[in-house]
Parts: sequence; structure tokens; C-alpha cells
Amino acid sequence: MEEPEIAVTLEPLGKTIHVLQGTRLIEAIASAGVTLDQPCGGEGTCGKCRVRMKSGACEATLVDQQCFSAKEIRQGWRLACQAVVEEPAVVEVPETSLLPSRHTILTDIVEGEPEVADPALRKRYVELTPPARGDEAADMLRLEAVVGPLEADVDMLRLLPGRLRENHFRGTVVTNEDELIDFEPGNTEAECHAVALDLGTTTLGAMLLDVATGQQRAMASRTNPQVALGDDVLSRILHARERPEGLHELHRAVVEAIDEMIGELCEESGVRRDRIYKMTVSGNTTMQQLFCRIDTSSLGEVPFVPTAARRIILAAAKLGVTIHPRGRVYVMPVIGGFVGGDTVSGILATGLVENDDPTLLVDIGTNGEIVLFAGDRLTAASTAAGPAFEGARISRGMRAATGAIEKVLFDQRLHLHVVGNVAPVGLCGSALVDLAAELLRHGVLTSEGRLLPQDKLPKSVPSDLRRRIVAHKKGLAFVLTEESETAGDRPILVTQRDFRELQLATGAIRAGVTILLKRAGVKPEDLDRVLIAGGFGNFIRRSNAQRIGLLPPGIPRNRIRYQGNTSLAGARLAALSRTARVQAEQLARRTEHVDLSSDPDFQTIFADAMIFPDDGRD
Amino acid sequence: MEEPEIAVTLEPLGKTIHVLQGTRLIEAIASAGVTLDQPCGGEGTCGKCRVRMKSGACEATLVDQQCFSAKEIRQGWRLACQAVVEEPAVVEVPETSLLPSRHTILTDIVEGEPEVADPALRKRYVELTPPARGDEAADMLRLEAVVGPLEADVDMLRLLPGRLRENHFRGTVVTNEDELIDFEPGNTEAECHAVALDLGTTTLGAMLLDVATGQQRAMASRTNPQVALGDDVLSRILHARERPEGLHELHRAVVEAIDEMIGELCEESGVRRDRIYKMTVSGNTTMQQLFCRIDTSSLGEVPFVPTAARRIILAAAKLGVTIHPRGRVYVMPVIGGFVGGDTVSGILATGLVENDDPTLLVDIGTNGEIVLFAGDRLTAASTAAGPAFEGARISRGMRAATGAIEKVLFDQRLHLHVVGNVAPVGLCGSALVDLAAELLRHGVLTSEGRLLPQDKLPKSVPSDLRRRIVAHKKGLAFVLTEESETAGDRPILVTQRDFRELQLATGAIRAGVTILLKRAGVKPEDLDRVLIAGGFGNFIRRSNAQRIGLLPPGIPRNRIRYQGNTSLAGARLAALSRTARVQAEQLARRTEHVDLSSDPDFQTIFADAMIFPDDGRD
Repeated sequence: MEEPEIAVTLEPLGKTIHVLQGTRLIEAIASAGVTLDQPCGGEGTCGKCRVRMKSGACEATLVDQQCFSAKEIRQGWRLACQAVVEEPAVVEVPETSLLPSRHTILTDIVEGEPEVADPALRKRYVELTPPARGDEAADMLRLEAVVGPLEADVDMLRLLPGRLRENHFRGTVVTNEDELIDFEPGNTEAECHAVALDLGTTTLGAMLLDVATGQQRAMASRTNPQVALGDDVLSRILHARERPEGLHELHRAVVEAIDEMIGELCEESGVRRDRIYKMTVSGNTTMQQLFCRIDTSSLGEVPFVPTAARRIILAAAKLGVTIHPRGRVYVMPVIGGFVGGDTVSGILATGLVENDDPTLLVDIGTNGEIVLFAGDRLTAASTAAGPAFEGARISRGMRAATGAIEKVLFDQRLHLHVVGNVAPVGLCGSALVDLAAELLRHGVLTSEGRLLPQDKLPKSVPSDLRRRIVAHKKGLAFVLTEESETAGDRPILVTQRDFRELQLATGAIRAGVTILLKRAGVKPEDLDRVLIAGGFGNFIRRSNAQRIGLLPPGIPRNRIRYQGNTSLAGARLAALSRTARVQAEQLARRTEHVDLSSDPDFQTIFADAMIFPDDGRD
Repeated sequence: MEEPEIAVTLEPLGKTIHVLQGTRLIEAIASAGVTLDQPCGGEGTCGKCRVRMKSGACEATLVDQQCFSAKEIRQGWRLACQAVVEEPAVVEVPETSLLPSRHTILTDIVEGEPEVADPALRKRYVELTPPARGDEAADMLRLEAVVGPLEADVDMLRLLPGRLRENHFRGTVVTNEDELIDFEPGNTEAECHAVALDLGTTTLGAMLLDVATGQQRAMASRTNPQVALGDDVLSRILHARERPEGLHELHRAVVEAIDEMIGELCEESGVRRDRIYKMTVSGNTTMQQLFCRIDTSSLGEVPFVPTAARRIILAAAKLGVTIHPRGRVYVMPVIGGFVGGDTVSGILATGLVENDDPTLLVDIGTNGEIVLFAGDRLTAASTAAGPAFEGARISRGMRAATGAIEKVLFDQRLHLHVVGNVAPVGLCGSALVDLAAELLRHGVLTSEGRLLPQDKLPKSVPSDLRRRIVAHKKGLAFVLTEESETAGDRPILVTQRDFRELQLATGAIRAGVTILLKRAGVKPEDLDRVLIAGGFGNFIRRSNAQRIGLLPPGIPRNRIRYQGNTSLAGARLAALSRTARVQAEQLARRTEHVDLSSDPDFQTIFADAMIFPDDGRD
């Protein structure tokens, strides 16, 4: 019942991903963490998401033929929103097809070479005039005369005089903002790296960046090892509070994992650890505080107060992260106890405030964070949406790891995609969304979230769905895989209760969106753009998200756009651009936190939001 | 032959010093490190140096009678420049009688209570509103709402949430500039201290300050233990360069001594070490770099290049100085390799640039630093004057330690003052200056620096001088004490060679002054003020300094003012005032270093300067 995966290699990234046959190319690319510009929402009308399929090109559509010349089509140019993966492909993704907000902040096209505008981290090879009688300026002033005002800590000053003289005053000045980080022998301008880190509750994602060009050199991800000490934010706060060494334990676990990931990044790219000068960290408030080893107790009780709101700067060496000995770690500013640096990253990376029109950002992770920009005001809220979407509290739920059914399609019969292409072990959140949407479409699931028994099903229900409804304990269940098809010889059932969990999670997000819109006096149809973020968000198909009512009705689908992992994208921006770093701070302070549960209509709105839409036009 | 010392106690300082009977009160006060305002140069015409002799008052002079009412005179009010110490005295020194430049930067009289204007270090007791539903601002923002924008390092952030909650959000916020240093339980506003340190080549002086009032709480001094590893700057640079552990050894020696001195300050004042939040350090460039453990090799060879020019900030804890765990150490900015933080302190503390008129500052230490402010330009030079003034390279020379003859007066017979009131061991620089001046006055020493044999002496030479000229090795010598009066049964002789050394030292300083004046086109008589600084400078009597030609002829004596230890005074200002700290940085960058030896007339000027003036009007 599994579909074979097809390899798609992205250039110049050099990354290969595996997707189901028939996957839209733009979604395939998104699953590699690369988000293309699609202002038309994938309708094929804007012509922005141009890529060149160097091999494995599909047939050009009519839209392609309007967009490209015959020669271009022969060369493999296609719109990624139109193209479908049918055979193994090599796809070239031009820098100009990336999301414009990331693009404009970051890069400035100079003779075709992308260059980072206003980098915080800089390298410059210099040949200073050595001191001589009549030119006895201090070493630091000699450097400043060439590179501008500098600060230096005493460790750097202890190193500097010897370094300058051994190298006859020739070498590469490394600065971060106004701080002198090193004076390296020879010209090392080409080796200037930073790491951007998405510090997820469940998953850690790290990206090695070439700061001079803004390009990604390597990517690593792994499960956050803190999971073993607590499944979600609250259980980790409890672990930190209740055990004598709890906080240290959580801190050490994640820092060690990050240090290992940096090792992987270096191995993959051939970059030396000491040529990484900076790491930017973006996560929710609790994850960021645990990372810094700041007590999280106050985040675990009403009114959920964080310690710091502004960015935190740490010495990497003191933290136990091996990069350059004077490398710095920047932790993103936060908005509040439950709206953290990852949300700030999202606001930054999506360029949320760059248009005047009302825009909504929904970041679906273990928590759901919602940000509304309307009438020059930024409001943000957090919902406890997480567990179901992440596969938790679902009978056979699991994370999107090997063995997880991550996609469900129905086309005469049920098609499943399993991560790692192995026998399925369980299902993750995106598959649950897919399944619920399909069952709603076919009338197997009612808008109240009730599974119908076989005898109550409409005639139109296809037999491959109908036969899967079985009795289970006190209710019904849907058989996703028979025991013969499953690892461990147990069928994978999705129970009535599981659909209730999904209803709760979906309802929480929709209620949050509804309340933010209501408070701002904005109607769903007034939203110019709805941006869906989060590693998980990326895997949900827009049509299915709308079908289950994740967003309030009335939002035209072409206004919904996937933004990929915006937490990582924001960390990347903060690593590369001083302007972006300053913007992040301003955005964090400017955003107003809305406590959803204190809204008088919360209960009513939440109850309404739990009803699946009657009439999802797919 | 020794004179008894008389105790003078200064209030509100609570400090007692011992001086020779007949010492002018203003000089007695200066020897305690307290410099009074005397714009008239001690002529008694300005009436600024008002003090109240609570006991031991001398007769009021005519000048006093013009200055004060009869009642005030009965209460003990006198001008310190007119008063003479005749019996043990208790003297009240009002804040308003202090040097105005130090006074105006530092203090603002608020209802009679001195308050430091613009302190960098502040304490404020706050009672914050604890977080509640609807008021979930971050801990740091909660503090910022009360005390303004704050930065905090991660150590502070780790401590903060617990500290706030244990104390129900009530306590004392400690900030240094914009940095949060601590949140202390209870109201500790009254306990806010800093240490100012004069890092001399020979002597370390440390002052414990109450930052809120600017007042001195305790004072400690000791010989710089680095002396054991090298007598002067150059020999220490050599020690650091030639031995594997040399730099560390020098660093450790001075840091340990400073840490012990802080212990003494705490013991004397009853102040807790962790209530000291800051230390400012002022010394010559080499001493400052050794203190920071920054390689000094380049300071030991042409063109004598320092590593850093701007101030250096270190964590006290990292340095091994036990003050508050997050206390900071600020090391003064420097002008050049041989014009260091001590000179910047001098420019700052004397308010050198605050008047428009040409002003000269001469700091007499192991090196002589000279600064000229004229026509809005600041120029500075350094001369290798030191050894003789500090007692080095003098046959029986020694530092102003116990057993040193530090003062020589001639009044029918020779009067000597010995430090510690013990049998003399040798003589220090100030005694050498006194002696040379007396011998020049009486024609025993010629202006070429030659001691005359008894048979060539003018008839007028008093017998107590005449009998002391003796033959010694290949030349003559002057017997300061007979062997019977001396510790160790050896007479203390001052040889012809010793007077040559003094000639060299004096000549170096006068040549430096002459060259700076020449380059600026300023005549000596155009100088509005000549400020003499340095712990040693303070002990030289103005008349004797002029008699031996330490300064070019033509400077009216009433324009010469003693400033005391301006290195310490500058460190004190930098510890207390943010404005002063910023000014120090600006002054350092604004001052132009003049390499005296590169002046084409240097040799001629230096040779001329070695001739003692013919005609010293005493």
C-alpha cells in the first residue's frame, strides 16, 4: 500500500529529498526547507516560482507555455507550482525565486553574486603599516584606522600583539558588530561562517551559513534530546523545577546535542569549527531559557512570565559550544512567556509588517502561535494546539520520524506515504489532517467530528473507505493499515477519540485566529495574506487544512502561503544581518501579547471552532 | 637631628597624618591626598582654601582677619595656605574647599549633602508590582520600567527570577552604566562602593569610595610587588619577554597585591567585599598592560607601541580580584606607549582643558609625563626622568619608605625628616631636591652641578653645611648624617655623582617642558597655571623645585599648584562619574603624543636644561 519515493535533488543547494510521485514540485522543494515565492498562492498567475528541471522535467503546462519561451521550456524551465514530480529530478532553484522578504533583507545582487547587506559578522584582509618612529599608534588604533571603531575583550587583546607581529601586520580582521573577534594569519575572507539554530521543543534544526554570501553550506537536524526528560514545554519546566539537577540536565542535554550538530555541519561542509564565529538561536521562550540555563519556573505558572525579553548574548566557549574561541551566541528576543523567539523570527522572516494590508501568520508547532498584523498593530497569541498535530495524545500517533505515515491521499483507494519507506509504525499529525479531510469530504466523518458506522454511511462512500470503519472498544475506529501491513503486527487504527483530539487542536488554532481577528476588527476575507509556518505546517496540504477548518472560513485559498520553518529563517537573518537583528528586537517589543483565555467570548468561540466546516470546497 | 612629627587629623575624612612642625597646613593636607583649591597659588589673596581648625589652631594672620569674621576666627576658620602646623590639630575640610575641577564634575550640592552627578554605578531600592494575569511582562522589562533600559549578562539572568520571587519583587537594583549587576534583598542603597586604584610602577594606592556621596571610605597603599621582578618599566618588560612565565608572574604579583589591598580597605571601613561593584585602574601603559596580562614586548622597543588605546573592561572575577561576583574592572585609556592612563587621569582630574588659558601639567613619577594645553591643543610627552626622583641610581637613594630621609630644611642647622621617625637608612628623591636647593642657595653647589671643596666655599656658607663637605673616592660628597646617627653605622653621603643624576632627571623634565612650550609657541610666562602632580611631586616644595630648575625660568611661583596624586584622582572620577569616564576616553584620543627625542633641538635644549638656574629667588 506504500508508494515509492522519488528523489529530487536541488541545486545549488546540493540537497536531495524524497517525495511521493505526483507531489507538486513547490511542495517537494518546501520539504527541503526552501520556500519559493508564490504571491498568487500557487495558481500559476504570478510566474514567480521559476525553477529549471535539469533532468526529470515534467510536461510543460499551458501556464508554463505562457510564462516561458519554447527554448526555455526545452531547457527545463517550469513554474514549481505547476510542475509535478513524476521521475527522479535535478532542479535548479535560482536565488531570485526565493521568498522576497528574506531576499530583500539579505541580499543585494552585485554582478549576479548575492552579497549580504549590512552583515554583523565581517572579515577583511588587511596589510597594515607596521609601527615606526613617528607612527607609534596602538595596535587597536592601527586596526581601527582601517576597519572602523572596534571593541575588544581582554582575551583578544592578550592575543593581538603577538598575532600582528608574527604575521608582519598582515592578516584577516574578523569583527562581529563592533567587536574584534580575531586577527587571523593570511587571507581567510572566504571562510566566514555562522550557525542558525531552530531550537524546537521536539526538533532541533541547524544551518551552517556562509556569511559573505548568505548561502547555506550544510543543514543538520535531530530530535531535541530533552524529549527524554519531558515531552512538552510544561513537563520540562516541571522537570527543571522539581529535580535538584533538573535545569542543568536539560541545559546540558540540548547544548551537547547542538555541539554535536555543529560537528556534523562541519563534517558535511568541510568547514573548520573555528571558522564559525556566531550562532543565533530561535525557539520558544521556555526552550530558549533552558538553553541559557535560566530558571523556567515562572514560565510554568500563571501568568507565565519570562526572565528576559531582549536578546541574550552568551560566550559560546562558556556555554560549551565549540566554535571560534571568541564566538558569540545570540538568543532571539521574546514577546512573552508563550510567544517566544521563534515567533519573533517568524514575524521577521516573513516580512509580516512590510505590507500595509492585514496579514496573519500561523506557526504550527508543539504550540500554535498566531500573529496578526493589521492597522499597524501587531498582536500575538499562543494556543495549546500542539499535541495532536505533533502526533501526541493520538492512539498510534508519533513524530514525523522513520515509520510514520506522514501523508494520506485518497484516489479510488487509500495511498499512504511512510517516512523512510519502511513498514508503518504509526501516523504523524499531517497524516491525521489528511485523513480527517478525506473522511469529511466523503461523509465518513461528520462536521461534529463523529465517525459514522458502516451502516450509516452515505451510498457514495468508496468501498476502500467503507470497509475500514470498524468497532473499537466503546466506539468506532478507522483502519489505516491492516496488521499484516504494519510493523509489529498491530493494525494502525485512528479512533473516534483521536478525531476528537484533532478537533480540539484545530479548534484551538481557529479560535485563536478568530479572537485576534475579532479584536482587530478584521474579517477573514479582509486578510491579504495568511502565512502558514512551522516544520509541520509545511507538510499540511492547504486544501486539507481548510477542509478541517484550521483557519476560519472565508479566506480565499490563494491567499494562504507556506513559509516553511520561519524560526530557522529568522535565526538565519539574525545571523547574517545587523539590520535584521535590530528589527527583531523592535518587532518583539512592538508585538502585543493577547491572552486568549481572558477574552470573554473565548469559550463560545472555542466551542464553535471545534465544529468542522460543513462545506469544504476542495 | 630629627624633628618630631605632629599629628593632624582631617575631618570628615577621619584620616591622621604626621608632619614636621612648621609645615604649611595646605601641604600637610596635600600629603593626605587631599588637594585644596588655591587659584592664587597660596598667596592668600583668593580666600578659597578655607578650613576650620577644631583644635590646634594657629594664630590668625592679617589675611585671615580680612577673610573671616571675628566669630569665624574664634571658631577656628583659617586659610590653609596661611596656617602653619604648630601643635597637634583637628582640621575640618569642607567639600567646597576642594579643587574645583574635581568638585564640579563630581558633586552637586543638594541640601548640603554632596551627591555624585551622573554616577555610572547606581543603586535603587524598588518595590515592583508582582506579575499577575494581564501583567505578564518579563522580569527584566519589569525592572526596566522602573530604572530604565538595562543589559544583563547570562549569569545575572540565571540569578534574577529566583531573587525577585524570594524577595517578593522588593529589593535593590544595582546597575553600572546600563548593565544590571545585581538585585539585592532589602534596601542596600547605602552600601554602594567602588575602588579607585593608582597602579604605580613603584607604589600601589587604592581608595575605597562611597559612590553615592563620592566620599573616600578608606585608603591603602603598598609597594608594587613587581618591584622584586624588575625595578623599572623596562626591566619588567624584559622580565615578561625573556621568561616563559614572566608575564603571568608579573600579572599575578600585582593582582594578588591588589586583592589584599581590597581586603585591607574592607577591614578598615567595615565594607563587605561584595558591596564593591567596580574598580577603576590608572597607571602607565606598561603597568596597565601587565595588570591585564597583555604582552608588553612592543612597549620595550622603538617605537614603543601599546596594544590598546581605549579603556579595557574586565570581569573582576575572571581577573582574580574578589569584589562583587559581577563586578567590573575599568582600565583607563592611554595616549601612547609612554603616556598612559595615569596621564589621562591627570588631564581629567586637573580639569586641564576647562580653562582657555595655556596650562601645563607635570606628573613626576618613575617617568615624568608632561602635558600642555594651549590654543585648544593637548600635547603630551614622556621623559625618562624617574630614577633619581624615586631615589634610584642615587648612592644612598631609596623609596619614600620607613627610614628614608624625605625632607631636608636648613635653618641655621640642617633639619631632617625621616619616614617612620626611625634612624635614617637613606634618602628619597624629595630630600635630594631639598638638599640640592639648599646647597645651591648657599653656594655649596654651583649652577653646573659641581660640589665645591671646603676651601673654595664662599665665606657666607654656614658652618653646619661647610663641615659636611668631605672627600669621597675620586670626588666630593655631602654628609647628610654621620655614621653614629644612621641605621647600620654607615654615614649617609650624597655624592657628586648623585647630584649629576639629579641634574639629568631635572634636565629631562625641563627639556620636555621647554620642547612642548616651544612647539606650541607658548612662553613660560604665558602659562596660566603649572600643575605639579604625582605622589612624589607633592612632597617637593615649590621653592626648591624652582631653585633646582625643574621648570623653565619665568614661571611666577603663584601659578604653580600641587595637585597631589592625579592618577588616583582620575581613577576616582572614572569610578564615580559616567561623564568623567567618557571625558577620559575623549581626552586620551584628543591628546597628541610628542616624541621629544625626535625634536631637532632636543640635544641642545637638554644640555641647557641641565644647568641649574643661576639666580633662584627663594
